[in-house]
Amino acid sequence: MKRIAVFTSGGDAPGMNASIRAVVRGGLHHGVEIFGIIRGYNGMIKGDIIPLNSQSVSNIIQRGGTILKSARSKEFMTPEGRKKAYEQLKSHGIEGLVAIGGNGTFTGAEIFYNEFQIPTVGVPGTIDNDLYGTDFTVGYDTAVNTALDAIDKIRDTADSHDRVFFIEVMGRDSGYIAIQSGISGGAESILIPEERQTVDDVVGTLKAGFNKKKTSSIVIVAEGDEEGNAAVIADQIKKTIDVPVDIRVTNLGHIQRGGSPSAADRILASRLGLGALEGLLAGHKNEMAGIVNDQLLYTPFHDTITKKKLINSDLIRLAGILSK
Amino acid sequence: MKRIAVFTSGGDAPGMNASIRAVVRGGLHHGVEIFGIIRGYNGMIKGDIIPLNSQSVSNIIQRGGTILKSARSKEFMTPEGRKKAYEQLKSHGIEGLVAIGGNGTFTGAEIFYNEFQIPTVGVPGTIDNDLYGTDFTVGYDTAVNTALDAIDKIRDTADSHDRVFFIEVMGRDSGYIAIQSGISGGAESILIPEERQTVDDVVGTLKAGFNKKKTSSIVIVAEGDEEGNAAVIADQIKKTIDVPVDIRVTNLGHIQRGGSPSAADRILASRLGLGALEGLLAGHKNEMAGIVNDQLLYTPFHDTITKKKLINSDLIRLAGILSK
Amino acid sequence: MKRIAVFTSGGDAPGMNASIRAVVRGGLHHGVEIFGIIRGYNGMIKGDIIPLNSQSVSNIIQRGGTILKSARSKEFMTPEGRKKAYEQLKSHGIEGLVAIGGNGTFTGAEIFYNEFQIPTVGVPGTIDNDLYGTDFTVGYDTAVNTALDAIDKIRDTADSHDRVFFIEVMGRDSGYIAIQSGISGGAESILIPEERQTVDDVVGTLKAGFNKKKTSSIVIVAEGDEEGNAAVIADQIKKTIDVPVDIRVTNLGHIQRGGSPSAADRILASRLGLGALEGLLAGHKNEMAGIVNDQLLYTPFHDTITKKKLINSDLIRLAGILSK
Amino acid sequence: MKRIAVFTSGGDAPGMNASIRAVVRGGLHHGVEIFGIIRGYNGMIKGDIIPLNSQSVSNIIQRGGTILKSARSKEFMTPEGRKKAYEQLKSHGIEGLVAIGGNGTFTGAEIFYNEFQIPTVGVPGTIDNDLYGTDFTVGYDTAVNTALDAIDKIRDTADSHDRVFFIEVMGRDSGYIAIQSGISGGAESILIPEERQTVDDVVGTLKAGFNKKKTSSIVIVAEGDEEGNAAVIADQIKKTIDVPVDIRVTNLGHIQRGGSPSAADRILASRLGLGALEGLLAGHKNEMAGIVNDQLLYTPFHDTITKKKLINSDLIRLAGILSK
Repeated sequence: MKRIAVFTSGGDAPGMNASIRAVVRGGLHHGVEIFGIIRGYNGMIKGDIIPLNSQSVSNIIQRGGTILKSARSKEFMTPEGRKKAYEQLKSHGIEGLVAIGGNGTFTGAEIFYNEFQIPTVGVPGTIDNDLYGTDFTVGYDTAVNTALDAIDKIRDTADSHDRVFFIEVMGRDSGYIAIQSGISGGAESILIPEERQTVDDVVGTLKAGFNKKKTSSIVIVAEGDEEGNAAVIADQIKKTIDVPVDIRVTNLGHIQRGGSPSAADRILASRLGLGALEGLLAGHKNEMAGIVNDQLLYTPFHDTITKKKLINSDLIRLAGILSK
Repeated sequence: MKRIAVFTSGGDAPGMNASIRAVVRGGLHHGVEIFGIIRGYNGMIKGDIIPLNSQSVSNIIQRGGTILKSARSKEFMTPEGRKKAYEQLKSHGIEGLVAIGGNGTFTGAEIFYNEFQIPTVGVPGTIDNDLYGTDFTVGYDTAVNTALDAIDKIRDTADSHDRVFFIEVMGRDSGYIAIQSGISGGAESILIPEERQTVDDVVGTLKAGFNKKKTSSIVIVAEGDEEGNAAVIADQIKKTIDVPVDIRVTNLGHIQRGGSPSAADRILASRLGLGALEGLLAGHKNEMAGIVNDQLLYTPFHDTITKKKLINSDLIRLAGILSK
Repeated sequence: MKRIAVFTSGGDAPGMNASIRAVVRGGLHHGVEIFGIIRGYNGMIKGDIIPLNSQSVSNIIQRGGTILKSARSKEFMTPEGRKKAYEQLKSHGIEGLVAIGGNGTFTGAEIFYNEFQIPTVGVPGTIDNDLYGTDFTVGYDTAVNTALDAIDKIRDTADSHDRVFFIEVMGRDSGYIAIQSGISGGAESILIPEERQTVDDVVGTLKAGFNKKKTSSIVIVAEGDEEGNAAVIADQIKKTIDVPVDIRVTNLGHIQRGGSPSAADRILASRLGLGALEGLLAGHKNEMAGIVNDQLLYTPFHDTITKKKLINSDLIRLAGILSK
Repeated sequence: MKRIAVFTSGGDAPGMNASIRAVVRGGLHHGVEIFGIIRGYNGMIKGDIIPLNSQSVSNIIQRGGTILKSARSKEFMTPEGRKKAYEQLKSHGIEGLVAIGGNGTFTGAEIFYNEFQIPTVGVPGTIDNDLYGTDFTVGYDTAVNTALDAIDKIRDTADSHDRVFFIEVMGRDSGYIAIQSGISGGAESILIPEERQTVDDVVGTLKAGFNKKKTSSIVIVAEGDEEGNAAVIADQIKKTIDVPVDIRVTNLGHIQRGGSPSAADRILASRLGLGALEGLLAGHKNEMAGIVNDQLLYTPFHDTITKKKLINSDLIRLAGILSK
């Protein structure tokens, strides 16, 4: 392979730029030309493809977002769209792809390979950490620390005013951000999709705290929790609880996606960017580069898409004990 | 005066602890005993009053919230409540009060003085910066920097995805946080109560940007804006605008109240805490200590409550020019 | 004037990019073409001059350093060097200059005007805050908060280990950073050039603390203090003091110059960048734009260079009282 | 076991408070009384031992340093000192110890057990990450991010002034902080004790950069590097290099030990605090609790002291490729 293109797709995540940089610098090391595709599959279809050299990626490792931009592409879901994409790649001489994104991205890449035999190796780039095949996804550590910083700030007000705060964090199908930011933020209760807690459970916890003269509490709610989002749950609890507590709700929202990546994310992103490139060069395809137990490995897209990565049960137990 | 009590009231603000510390250390300097009242007027009524010494306030200057806690007190709005509060103060030998809070706090203090002749000097403690008689209120600089940090993060995503973000910041009756965080965050449009902008104005700005190929924008909305809050305005704009823009809304919420105070807030809070104490000792009452043009001065509560501090029109002009 | 160039010179300071952006956006507003000169007077001599448009300065307001780079220029100190600079400006059609820097920069600009009648208006860009004619210089607020963040961290260790830390902060001829970071960091002693304290004074403060069972202390030393730098002073104190204290020294160094500018610095920098541009257009020359008491004004370079801005004596008194 | 005491010893590290909290909350869960010993072995000898309840550790998870303080104890190195310590523990009814610290701490604990049969389980609390038996030590992730934040700031100045900065980070016998902060900070060269690089190697790297028109560079130096510390190495390079580079040196110093712990450190510290307590209850002794591949395990002090944890060679290779 002489020419490889890298692109970002799906929601942006801190560290994507570090991955792009590693692909480019790795290309220099291996004598491979690297191109960047702007706005993911959309740019592939439009031929928005530019050469990247060492200078292109200098001074980007510390930046949030993605210099290659990201977008959803309805057109790539059609055979005609993919055909155009293939022709663009061919006209640029691109022989392989590094796709930084999540399962939606990888699904598209696998279909594309089956049709046109352009191989892709993926980098798990999503703050949600819900991808099988890697201990951590790029952006997760930063997002957790951003959420934690917000929780620390809100606790100042909770303590000063003897309030209970329900804080909603990201994680549509997965409680990773919630459990990690909740434990580290000293939350009294953490609601995640993986571990069913009812409104009555939360009421019980809050009443127990109240009876111990604990005057303020933090409840973390993953956006994907089955009982509903933070506002819905807080409303139910206000109706149910029979001790006087002052309940407030806040949704951390989009700040969780941005910011300068943490050290762990920059290193993970760099390892995986290089790993994906070297995987392609070694003949891998339809696989995602991941780090499991500090070792690089490749997992078939099929597994990253169909298998569920479980939250370590030690953490769920820990959360319960620490809130005593 | 031999005994003075300090309390915090109303919404908490970063720097309140620095003010408390300055009152206590100033008391040591002037040979005055300082007491702390827990939970504002509520604690005054209940006699929740404790002596504070140098140790009590060591290592608190960097903490958000208030170690004296804050609460609303309906009982203090009644003559009976205030009578109880007076008796508690009398039984503790308290001869003067330093009240850290906003106009609600000062209104109560003035009524209390008229009934019981216990003098109060106020410290402006609110993130909103909407108090006449001081260039800045305690907590404002920190809140602006917290909002700015969030805006910087959201811009990462806005740029990566070519989106328009409407970001709601605090400031119920005042656009200070909005104008300051908006200019420093490089916002394309800033909606504040002081400067009427219609939905059509914003649509015009966004369309002009779109036509210049500006693919992402930030619009800051003060929660008190006349056109409604960020979600309402964004909905109206989605209905009106006739170019394809991807609009998202986020409300920064309670994170703006918390966090370790900035250097400027710690110094302002310290100057005003000491200034309030020394004002009391010099015979001031029913006045708020403030810093105007880097000089300490005292403004009657009547003026802080009835007069409106205006946003420097230079800033509004600047915001317009910078978004070109 | 139809063409104006902007450059940065001297030590970099957070906020310089915000000033550059304001000059460019202000140019758009006033219909003036703006050019950027790379590496200050060096680039002027070499003709390293580029046009700047609105895009050139998008997404830079949050970045530390200066996109136009900075350098010292020995050649500009010679008549031949300045002649070359003039010819370069002339060949680019540049009729006026906005110089972002300190007194060294302004001195050069004044000589240059006297020889070639190209007018300059200055923006005070230095973290030291030691320029007469403005309440604050661009970069000062950020540098103070960076120093404060470091002091907060070091206090964790000082408290945990019962140590005395001597922390050296920047400020070669001026104690602004020291007094501001020292008060806000809760320092027990602050050594600044403006206020002579002897080694014996510091020993006295430390012994008094020791006798009050205060087990840890922070002493802030401005690099320009007459008694020497932090390491020298700490050594003298170790030799003199006769109570057992564990003394450590740390020099914060270059971190104080960098980082994303604070909200206050971004706004100050924006106001002054626009102010300098509009000053030029209104016929000002050999003057620095400054903000005094929240109003824009212009001060002759002669005054910024020869007059000394004094630290508000309230702050020196405050520092003494708070360390009780 | 009915009574267990926890203490911190050696250099402080962010997250120690989270470990203390987990021991206390775990004690509540298991019906064990928890005591805290102030100032490590010193406090053990003096009987500075206090009961800790759930309230004692509320609101400390976010704080740097250690609420139990830390100190070196020469007296504990003597049989007489240890005898006194034993008698104090006995008089308080303490049957087991959780020691948060490093190898010095664990060595003392093992000798103590051999003499008096009071079992200790350790928690690896040190920013250096140089303990065998755990993937990460408590405080390491925070220290790396603190160093990284400083590197990001210094790069602003390096870029603006075309300079080469030598930055010394902590790590007396180990390059963990250097390699992690160096890769994530985008350093051009990283000098660590584990990987011998000569002055000539660094000169080669800097000259290669110079020839590629790379105008600024960052070189990270672990304090334990064989070639000397940053200032020594920089001096040698200034003498050797024959291209014009402007070299500056800065030592990050004690800021690396402090600060609010990162999410990863708070969780690691919590897991290990609970793990150490539950280890003691299960009969472990002379062992350190660690997390390896996300699983809790116990490693004999003998191994943590005598075995060397190696830096993953993938990282050393990665650093080389990324600096191309």
